[in-house]
Amino acid sequence: MKIAIVGATGAVGQQMLQCLEERNIQADVKLLASARSAGKKFSFMGKELVVEELTENSFKDVDYALGATENDLAKKWIPWANADGVVVVDNSSAFRLCDDVPLVIPEINPEDIKKHNGIIANPNCATIIAMVALHELYKKYHIKRMIVSTYQAVSGAGVKGIQDLESQLKDPNAPRTAFPYQIAYNLIPQIGGFDENGISSEEWKMQNEARKMWHDPNLKVNCTCIRVPVMRSHSESIFIECEEEVNVEEARQLIANGNGTVLKDDPQNKIYPMPLDTTDQDLVFVGRIRKDLTDETGHSMAIWCCGDQIRKGAATNAVQILQELIK
Amino acid sequence: MKIAIVGATGAVGQQMLQCLEERNIQADVKLLASARSAGKKFSFMGKELVVEELTENSFKDVDYALGATENDLAKKWIPWANADGVVVVDNSSAFRLCDDVPLVIPEINPEDIKKHNGIIANPNCATIIAMVALHELYKKYHIKRMIVSTYQAVSGAGVKGIQDLESQLKDPNAPRTAFPYQIAYNLIPQIGGFDENGISSEEWKMQNEARKMWHDPNLKVNCTCIRVPVMRSHSESIFIECEEEVNVEEARQLIANGNGTVLKDDPQNKIYPMPLDTTDQDLVFVGRIRKDLTDETGHSMAIWCCGDQIRKGAATNAVQILQELIK
Repeated sequence: MKIAIVGATGAVGQQMLQCLEERNIQADVKLLASARSAGKKFSFMGKELVVEELTENSFKDVDYALGATENDLAKKWIPWANADGVVVVDNSSAFRLCDDVPLVIPEINPEDIKKHNGIIANPNCATIIAMVALHELYKKYHIKRMIVSTYQAVSGAGVKGIQDLESQLKDPNAPRTAFPYQIAYNLIPQIGGFDENGISSEEWKMQNEARKMWHDPNLKVNCTCIRVPVMRSHSESIFIECEEEVNVEEARQLIANGNGTVLKDDPQNKIYPMPLDTTDQDLVFVGRIRKDLTDETGHSMAIWCCGDQIRKGAATNAVQILQELIK
Repeated sequence: MKIAIVGATGAVGQQMLQCLEERNIQADVKLLASARSAGKKFSFMGKELVVEELTENSFKDVDYALGATENDLAKKWIPWANADGVVVVDNSSAFRLCDDVPLVIPEINPEDIKKHNGIIANPNCATIIAMVALHELYKKYHIKRMIVSTYQAVSGAGVKGIQDLESQLKDPNAPRTAFPYQIAYNLIPQIGGFDENGISSEEWKMQNEARKMWHDPNLKVNCTCIRVPVMRSHSESIFIECEEEVNVEEARQLIANGNGTVLKDDPQNKIYPMPLDTTDQDLVFVGRIRKDLTDETGHSMAIWCCGDQIRKGAATNAVQILQELIK
C-alpha cells in the first residue's frame, strides 16, 4: 500500500507523517510538495523519505492520499489523484460541503466514509474540536443552538503563523506574513474573509459543517472567531441550548466516558482545560461545565474546551479517516 | 483641595496619578501605600511626590480619596477615611453591591453619584468595558440577556500579572506570582474563585454590577471569563437578546455617536477592535456588529469590543467619578 501526503512540508503535512508513524500504519509513504520543497528529506519509521514535486503524474503508484494544501491547489491535484483511482482524505475546505463528498469526524459519523466517491473531506479545526467536545451532549440532549466564541492558535495559519508569533514576541516590528496585524500581545477578530453580513468564512464553517456531520439541517450556530497568541491548541467558550433539559453532573459523566474527550472539570481545585495542556496530543479536554443560569427553563449549558489544532483539528482526524478506509 | 491615592504604587494607582495630571485636576495629591513602598518618589505636574505609609491618621488633611487596594485592605482604610469626612472612590469590589454605595460608570448612571454616603464604588473592569460598549443598545433595544466570553489582559492582576507574562515569555519556567499556571502562550479559564455552581466571582460580577447600574434586576448575564496573554486591554465577545427588534446599521450609528465609544466596524477593510489599539487610551472600541442569525425573531445581535483595563476599566473611570464629585 502506498500513501501520499500532499503538502508534506507544512505544519499539517508534517504532523500527518508523524501520526502515520505513531499509529504504525504499514505502508510506503510518498511526500509531495511544490517544486521549491522538492529534495527536502524527512525520516519515517527509520527510513529517509525525499520530498518529490507534485505533478499530474505523482499518483500513478499511489493508493491513498492525505491532502494538506490550500483550496486552490486542492482543486487542482485532487482530480489528478482521483483519475488514477486514488482515494483522497483532504484537509482543505474546497470540497467539504459538496453533496457527494462525506465530511467526517470518526468519533461522530464514521459510517459516512462509505459513501465516498474518491474524496473524504476533513472538517475545519475549530469545528472538529467543538463537535468532539459536544457529541455526547448532542446525542443526549439534542443541541438546537450553539453560541461559540473561539480562541484560535496561530498554528491555524500554518508554519508562517507560528513563525510570526515567535518573531513578533522578540520584535513587535518583525514582518507579518500570516496575519494582517501584529498577533504578539494582541487578538485579531478575523479568521478568513467576511461576507456582506459581517460574518467570516471561519464563523460560517461551524454551522455548515456541524449541520452536515450531525445530519441536522436545523442546527443553529452563531460563532465569533478570534486569533489569540497561543501556539497550537484552539480553545472555545460554548453555550448550548437543547431540546431536552440538561443535567450538569450527567453531562460530566457523558464527557468523561465519551469518545475522544477528557473531562477536566474540578474548577475549585484549579482543574480545567488549558491550551498548553492539550498541545501535542490527540484528545479534546472539556471542563467549566455549568448550567446557563440565564435560561430559566434549564435547557442551556456552558462549556470550555481545548484541543490541539494541528493534531485532532487536522492531521490526526485525517489519519483516523484513513485508518477507517483501510481496515 | 487634597486628593489621596491609596495603593499609589500599583498599576491602577499609578494610572490614577497620570489621569489626574492629564485631566489637569487642580489639587494637592497625597500618595499612600504600604510601609514597604513609603519613600518612593513620583512626579506629578512637575512636582515630586513622596509616598507615605497608609495609617489611620493619613486622612486628616484629605478631601477625596481614590482607592486602588485589594478588598481586605479597602475594608480597613475606607472607614478611617470616612471618619475624617473623606469621600472615597473605591476600585475594590468590597462595597460595590452594598445598598448605600452607588456603583457608577459616568457615561451610564452619573446621577447615582449624588446618593453616596462617603463611598462611591468603581465597577469591575470587564463590566465597565461591556456596559460602555452596550449602553446605547441597551437604551434603544432593552437588552434582556447577555452571553459574554471575555479575553482579559494580564494587567487585571496588576503589576505582577504584567511581570509574569514578560518573564514567562523569556523563560516559561519563570516564577508564577499572579496566576496559578503559565500564562505565556496559554489561556487560563479562571479569574477569581469558583462557587458551588462552577461560576467564578469575576463571572458573577457582570450580572450583579450591570443589574445595579442599569437599575434592571431582571437582566440576565452568562459570562465565561478567560485570562489571555495580552498586556493591558480586555476584549469581549458579546451576544445580546433584546426586548425590541435590533437593526445593525442603526446600532452602528448609536455606537458611533455614543458616549465613550468608538465605532471600528468595517471588517471587509480589516477595521475592527483589537486590544493593542485600545491600549493606553480611554475609549472603548466596538465592532464586528452583526445580527445573530440563530435567533430568527431578529431580537439578537453579536458584538466584539476592546478597552484599556487599567484606564477605562479602572483608573479613568474612578477619576471621572471624582470629576463629577468636584464639579
